[in-house]
Amino acid sequence: MVRVGILGATGAVGQRLIQLLEPHPDFEIAALTASPASAGKPYREAAKWRADSPIPSSVTDIEVTETTPEAIPDDVSLLFSSLPSSVGAEVEPPLAEAGYVVSSNSSNARMADDVPLVIPEVNADHVGLLEVQRDERGWDGALLKNPNCSTITMVPTLAALDGFGLERVHVATLQAVSGAGYSGVTSMEIIDNVLPHIGGEAEKMETESLKLLGEFDGAEVSPHDAEVSATTNRVPTLDGHLENVWADLAESPSVEEVQAALEAFPNLALPSSPDPLIHVFEEPGRPQPRLDRMLGDGMAVSVGGVRETPDGVQYDCLAHNTLRGAAGASVLNGELLLDEGYL
Amino acid sequence: MVRVGILGATGAVGQRLIQLLEPHPDFEIAALTASPASAGKPYREAAKWRADSPIPSSVTDIEVTETTPEAIPDDVSLLFSSLPSSVGAEVEPPLAEAGYVVSSNSSNARMADDVPLVIPEVNADHVGLLEVQRDERGWDGALLKNPNCSTITMVPTLAALDGFGLERVHVATLQAVSGAGYSGVTSMEIIDNVLPHIGGEAEKMETESLKLLGEFDGAEVSPHDAEVSATTNRVPTLDGHLENVWADLAESPSVEEVQAALEAFPNLALPSSPDPLIHVFEEPGRPQPRLDRMLGDGMAVSVGGVRETPDGVQYDCLAHNTLRGAAGASVLNGELLLDEGYL
Amino acid sequence: MVRVGILGATGAVGQRLIQLLEPHPDFEIAALTASPASAGKPYREAAKWRADSPIPSSVTDIEVTETTPEAIPDDVSLLFSSLPSSVGAEVEPPLAEAGYVVSSNSSNARMADDVPLVIPEVNADHVGLLEVQRDERGWDGALLKNPNCSTITMVPTLAALDGFGLERVHVATLQAVSGAGYSGVTSMEIIDNVLPHIGGEAEKMETESLKLLGEFDGAEVSPHDAEVSATTNRVPTLDGHLENVWADLAESPSVEEVQAALEAFPNLALPSSPDPLIHVFEEPGRPQPRLDRMLGDGMAVSVGGVRETPDGVQYDCLAHNTLRGAAGASVLNGELLLDEGYL
Amino acid sequence: MVRVGILGATGAVGQRLIQLLEPHPDFEIAALTASPASAGKPYREAAKWRADSPIPSSVTDIEVTETTPEAIPDDVSLLFSSLPSSVGAEVEPPLAEAGYVVSSNSSNARMADDVPLVIPEVNADHVGLLEVQRDERGWDGALLKNPNCSTITMVPTLAALDGFGLERVHVATLQAVSGAGYSGVTSMEIIDNVLPHIGGEAEKMETESLKLLGEFDGAEVSPHDAEVSATTNRVPTLDGHLENVWADLAESPSVEEVQAALEAFPNLALPSSPDPLIHVFEEPGRPQPRLDRMLGDGMAVSVGGVRETPDGVQYDCLAHNTLRGAAGASVLNGELLLDEGYL
Repeated sequence: MVRVGILGATGAVGQRLIQLLEPHPDFEIAALTASPASAGKPYREAAKWRADSPIPSSVTDIEVTETTPEAIPDDVSLLFSSLPSSVGAEVEPPLAEAGYVVSSNSSNARMADDVPLVIPEVNADHVGLLEVQRDERGWDGALLKNPNCSTITMVPTLAALDGFGLERVHVATLQAVSGAGYSGVTSMEIIDNVLPHIGGEAEKMETESLKLLGEFDGAEVSPHDAEVSATTNRVPTLDGHLENVWADLAESPSVEEVQAALEAFPNLALPSSPDPLIHVFEEPGRPQPRLDRMLGDGMAVSVGGVRETPDGVQYDCLAHNTLRGAAGASVLNGELLLDEGYL
Repeated sequence: MVRVGILGATGAVGQRLIQLLEPHPDFEIAALTASPASAGKPYREAAKWRADSPIPSSVTDIEVTETTPEAIPDDVSLLFSSLPSSVGAEVEPPLAEAGYVVSSNSSNARMADDVPLVIPEVNADHVGLLEVQRDERGWDGALLKNPNCSTITMVPTLAALDGFGLERVHVATLQAVSGAGYSGVTSMEIIDNVLPHIGGEAEKMETESLKLLGEFDGAEVSPHDAEVSATTNRVPTLDGHLENVWADLAESPSVEEVQAALEAFPNLALPSSPDPLIHVFEEPGRPQPRLDRMLGDGMAVSVGGVRETPDGVQYDCLAHNTLRGAAGASVLNGELLLDEGYL
Repeated sequence: MVRVGILGATGAVGQRLIQLLEPHPDFEIAALTASPASAGKPYREAAKWRADSPIPSSVTDIEVTETTPEAIPDDVSLLFSSLPSSVGAEVEPPLAEAGYVVSSNSSNARMADDVPLVIPEVNADHVGLLEVQRDERGWDGALLKNPNCSTITMVPTLAALDGFGLERVHVATLQAVSGAGYSGVTSMEIIDNVLPHIGGEAEKMETESLKLLGEFDGAEVSPHDAEVSATTNRVPTLDGHLENVWADLAESPSVEEVQAALEAFPNLALPSSPDPLIHVFEEPGRPQPRLDRMLGDGMAVSVGGVRETPDGVQYDCLAHNTLRGAAGASVLNGELLLDEGYL
Repeated sequence: MVRVGILGATGAVGQRLIQLLEPHPDFEIAALTASPASAGKPYREAAKWRADSPIPSSVTDIEVTETTPEAIPDDVSLLFSSLPSSVGAEVEPPLAEAGYVVSSNSSNARMADDVPLVIPEVNADHVGLLEVQRDERGWDGALLKNPNCSTITMVPTLAALDGFGLERVHVATLQAVSGAGYSGVTSMEIIDNVLPHIGGEAEKMETESLKLLGEFDGAEVSPHDAEVSATTNRVPTLDGHLENVWADLAESPSVEEVQAALEAFPNLALPSSPDPLIHVFEEPGRPQPRLDRMLGDGMAVSVGGVRETPDGVQYDCLAHNTLRGAAGASVLNGELLLDEGYL
């Protein structure tokens, strides 16, 4: 068992990480960090546990520490990070320098040239960028990122369609409130309402997607040359980001060919990679967030409403934003790092 | 005062029509029709009144009649119709033939060659198609339609931008439950959920928009040659359709030029036409359905989030779906018909 | 394995019954009935499946039949009924007469003198009333009822406190929309709203509770002599009825004694009876419908906020209305019937 | 015109106060205070305006000040306070000492012996306690409180029934999220959920009610001797507290007598006192928060579902929690103070 730590363990994604890691076949929770105000407390006191299952008994008494190399036990080798990006920017590099391998969900440094941004089923080979990172930075550890939750929902479907010549993407999102963190959206903002324009979200989708779909030549990642235009909305759902996608393609595949390409897109032999990766609905009106977000234990991407357009194809896709889109994404990246020999 | 009737007066849009027509300066409610099961009852018994204001006392005792030429008083000249489309298809033509002028919100016949489909601020001149209609059908009355609620929300903004050379539109909608009628969406379907793909809605947006933006040459309407691709979603809001629009343009106007064109798009001197017609938000995160749907007494269209794209412009727009998008649309068309001398 | 049938299998509770019975250790689904319009169709076509898990493959091809003795296979011995009460009143007696044992969730006949109304953990001995029923009616089969969902939520807690001398109960409910069936509450009724006064619900709670808590002397059930006053509300939650209870008691137990009595109330050695039956929260602000409705696989009752009042005790209780309160209640009653030798 | 100030003007109730005071016939907004961080900014910058109507232009440029006697102009005589209670406890007494008359919605000091707690239609005579207050404290100004929003909803109905001999009250509340302030309830807490046990709320209802219904003899207020037992819940509604009330009475009035007493309870000749004060619904299923909260411009109390119980009467009542229950309550108290000659 690899002993792992969770950075930012009291937050919404931190709690999801505990739920995923506690029963994990390869990882064992050995460290939980939070803000200085929580340090020194047992986890059950430091965290306001909000999940619909009880706190796993194995973590209730773990003493929460600060997020510093000194505070984390030496026998911990892998850290899962879901820190606010400003904190992540500050503490992740010294932790990687100190020898820890950091699988991070925080948005800082995602677009840095020597930081791999990875969805294992899409671009596992980008992990090789860690060699460049270690060379350049002189780190013993490593820093690897998963993308934004709204990006993750869409990119596996684009990867599956790239064989038809992906040229241009329009995407409108309908995102769940949990994507903003536990207190990110107030009830008075969202009851009987929709909030357009989530700050910074469209830009993340537009840039991260192209890095994920890009080519790694052993030295650097060349982003995909498609054009992505995103717009984002927050809607009154708890979990599950639904996205309306138009993919303009060089070729003109039929609906059946598109569905077949999506269904055939391979998963990986990692514990958290679902089979199938992409679930295709043929009946109209699916996927729906509440009904379909837990497909593949919350790690699948589902697609429906595929139809041809004059320039390519239009469809809807859905993924669970705090599982496939955040905590599960980091865990899956940790599994990939283990599989690739980085631990 | 023009004496008017409401066809389908007990339904959700029918109740909105009563709210709008009861205090109207030019129209006086003189007939209310409903299904045979309701005929003969006073309105207060026939309708399950669901608005957040009481039934206007002037209509409580009006006896509801069937929707036939015989049942409607002769001194009524204008009929507002919000019937189910299958019923509308059956009863509207004989009423128009019998001499009534019908301003209809029902979806039947919207795309018929000799039926004007009108948003007064956008294409008032299409009313002239009624002359063709009367010639061809030998009617004394007339049948005029307003478009679908999701179409109405977007088309004024497209009309305002057509001066920049509208070429292609992508639009994703986030539509309120009231658009499906009072019982159209159950609570179990929509709590903590989004329903993608509203049946038939995208097709209406794609075809109706081009007819509305088309040219009327005195004999027929030539649809606009832009390409419109729509996708639709139902979200847990009561009223107000929010739409994410990408408009590809021949020219490359700046954000300021786009905002100026939207704000400058003129309203009409009709009682229900708001001033301004299009309200432009510069601050991020607006318009929002709950906060902004009642702008201009529910008859304005609001726009926000304008930004340039490589091919044109992206923005969000919003209108109240049962006011500007349905009952108010029909009333405004009635005002136009009065102004143009058809009554 | 006992071969069982589900009457009203296409409805909301019927679908829950399928979810519970498909993996059941003692029961095997062998018949599904619905309205004449559905008869003859395979279940997957007859039912609009709405759960967040797929239709069990073992039932997809079962041909739905009408709800008559002739249509149900002879080797089926136990029927679970979730029919509309008017239909239940018509078809349940002939089925019981024809030899079927009917465990029914329908509200008809619950208060009939010779029909046992049972929550197994509360009044399993009332099953003995079936002997009276068979004597009086000359039935080979039997008809047994579970109470209303709102009644079930509260009664186990009252039974646990009856040792302190239950005298009077006030209860206010906050009930989920699923309690009204799939189409029972429209989205326009409940978004940003509460519906007070669910028709007939308070009366059921007031009468059914006293029968459940009553004494069976081998011949008849004498209702408990406490006074119950209920008021009911529908709130915008999907599942889980929360109830605010004041129980006036002859004795004056402390909060700790009340909590201990609740926690100590025994469950039964039946597959669907959870251990513990009653989950007591000491922290404030629990139970909550979304967080706690699935305790004990949806079969537990949870209690929180216990505090003393001048006349007894006040607390909140919660149960999952379509599991513990409906489908699970019927299944548990079926397990009791099997255990007691009625099958 | 009386020049008035608003203490805590940027909060949710502060914004409601602006909406009410801006068009007020007797009051003119002349000062807006907020926390030191906002002091010095024009109101439009200091406040995040969240209402569904624009900021009144007359206040947009008012410079926000700190909440101190020095910072408030001398020609302001009446202050409306909606400060957090800890801040109110600190700043309200010195302001009253400095000569300002303070009509406060903050919860501090509501139960103090020499502070009148007033709902004008219920206990306007308690204002006389201000003489005692001035004597005892040597203040030139005065401090008067309105009760908690959940208390205000119920007390007018209890006052109307007190002629039948009010003995005991049980009340369960279903409270809107706005009662917790703009950020008080997160979306993740309340979507598909109910939160029982609002901290401190039941105690306020139990004590404040008896003070409001008590007798003032010129020297002190003797609380009513009825017993009140409250329990509280937060539900997913925006505005409007619905409450289920059991009132045990010495007499046994009929439903009609109860309804007549409620309807006959008098309003006052003050600008914000609605006529009627109490709106009685005879049809089942009303009042409902979304449909009925704006009755009497949000200042009426509505009642429905009246029925007899063995010990008295049961009914539901509703009021708009930030209008009748908070901002409107303070304004109405200010009107009373003006009418009584305190300004």
